[in-house]
Amino acid sequence: MDALGYYNGKWGPLDEMSVPMNDRGCYFGDGVYDAAVSANGVIFTLDEHVDRFFASAGFLEIELPYTKNELKKTLYEMLAKVDKGDLLVYWQATRGTSRRVHSFPGGKSNLWIMIKPNIIPDIYKKIKLITAEDIRFLRCDIKTINLIPNVIAARRASDAGCHEAVFHRNGIVTECTRSNVHIIKNGAFITHPANNFILRGIARNHLIQACGRLGVPVEERTFTLAELFAADEILVSSTSTFGLSASAIDGNPAGGKAPELLKKIQDEVMKEFSEATGYTKF
Amino acid sequence: MDALGYYNGKWGPLDEMSVPMNDRGCYFGDGVYDAAVSANGVIFTLDEHVDRFFASAGFLEIELPYTKNELKKTLYEMLAKVDKGDLLVYWQATRGTSRRVHSFPGGKSNLWIMIKPNIIPDIYKKIKLITAEDIRFLRCDIKTINLIPNVIAARRASDAGCHEAVFHRNGIVTECTRSNVHIIKNGAFITHPANNFILRGIARNHLIQACGRLGVPVEERTFTLAELFAADEILVSSTSTFGLSASAIDGNPAGGKAPELLKKIQDEVMKEFSEATGYTKF
Repeated sequence: MDALGYYNGKWGPLDEMSVPMNDRGCYFGDGVYDAAVSANGVIFTLDEHVDRFFASAGFLEIELPYTKNELKKTLYEMLAKVDKGDLLVYWQATRGTSRRVHSFPGGKSNLWIMIKPNIIPDIYKKIKLITAEDIRFLRCDIKTINLIPNVIAARRASDAGCHEAVFHRNGIVTECTRSNVHIIKNGAFITHPANNFILRGIARNHLIQACGRLGVPVEERTFTLAELFAADEILVSSTSTFGLSASAIDGNPAGGKAPELLKKIQDEVMKEFSEATGYTKF
Repeated sequence: MDALGYYNGKWGPLDEMSVPMNDRGCYFGDGVYDAAVSANGVIFTLDEHVDRFFASAGFLEIELPYTKNELKKTLYEMLAKVDKGDLLVYWQATRGTSRRVHSFPGGKSNLWIMIKPNIIPDIYKKIKLITAEDIRFLRCDIKTINLIPNVIAARRASDAGCHEAVFHRNGIVTECTRSNVHIIKNGAFITHPANNFILRGIARNHLIQACGRLGVPVEERTFTLAELFAADEILVSSTSTFGLSASAIDGNPAGGKAPELLKKIQDEVMKEFSEATGYTKF
């Protein structure tokens, strides 16, 4: 099958799977998730994604009735049932099943897995961005399934023919709807601190590590919309896109002023992916 | 049956109902809802709830493939299948079914209905409250199913033996996890303006209207935590609780200084409910 769904031990073709109406994910969005890409049967940076998933569940006191190793084993077992190819492995835990009541009882969470084909983008192709006000809740460091502001802004970007929307709070850039955002200025890599206003992106961590290996200075600090527009390069990173660079924001030309440094950083993160998975179609 | 679930035309006992794993409500919380109480087969203030539901869907560009009258007819048809008694009629619309992608395609939303027994509380009994920081997203006027901050704070309240948590942003009281909150001070009814920081509660509207009929001055303005603690009375209102009053906040005695005025207002809202539904068990 090309896509698989899994729910508490039951699995089948994704488009045919169903879940209980009383799952708290269905009416409260009461759950957390994570996702990773696979190539050649290897789920890239899975340990880091599983660690973050357990941390997200811990923040919300969602009880996970399995160990990290058991979860990884289940993910690999499900991956093996799907047609070969580049895949996105997504999983979420929702806080149990009951008739709708805000204050949650204790009890075990539900495990959902969704595996589907994934297209690894050409990392060297330019993307376009829009900007959008960041109206999200104040714990963006927790990877929850409460994603309405994200889907609304993603639609705005798509309507404008753009890849992503860059969120800002009162002119301070935070992140995008499903990516982190960073700038290169005067040879330095500048990225929002990993606090409650952004997700601690794993691709972001790998970009920072790549800069470390390359001797590129990294500044973890907030930056403004004005700095974004004036940046030498703008990078947008996520698990499935690694680190794409932008050539336009809100219809204005942007970035493109440090192409050699940009390519060095992109080469470095793709090399790591290639070495881990054997992926070579760059 | 004591509780019913409905999904796009299919219905059955609530606890046995299932929905597609690919419903966007399941992994993005991408939906809006509303709910009303019924007694003696009458759904109280249904028109107002349906109007608000359509407004919530409109804000998020969720397409509803039925008219308000058709929705009301469906809700009454489902209500007729459930055992007689006091019931909560809940419904939500989620933005369609597809494999997970942030930017939404067009298409019809899914209609969910959940009907279950409801206990109409003794409105004259005192409740206890805690306070909690309001970290929710900045469009609390839209009744979405992105409710993680609400369920977390509701659990905190429950753990403390309290009925509700009162949210505040930097000391300005907004509302509760599933209720609005108001104070009585020097004979006036004071309530947060109906802007993006609170839900435009229908019970809140009816409290305001009751004050109007009684000649009680109404001030729609923000008030602080200090004003909440020093209030003559504190009222918490929701569709299922009408208007309960508090005797404690964060373990400190509160309210109780204008019991006659409080009772006049409570009598007035319950009279309206009683006249509309024939409910008499006060």
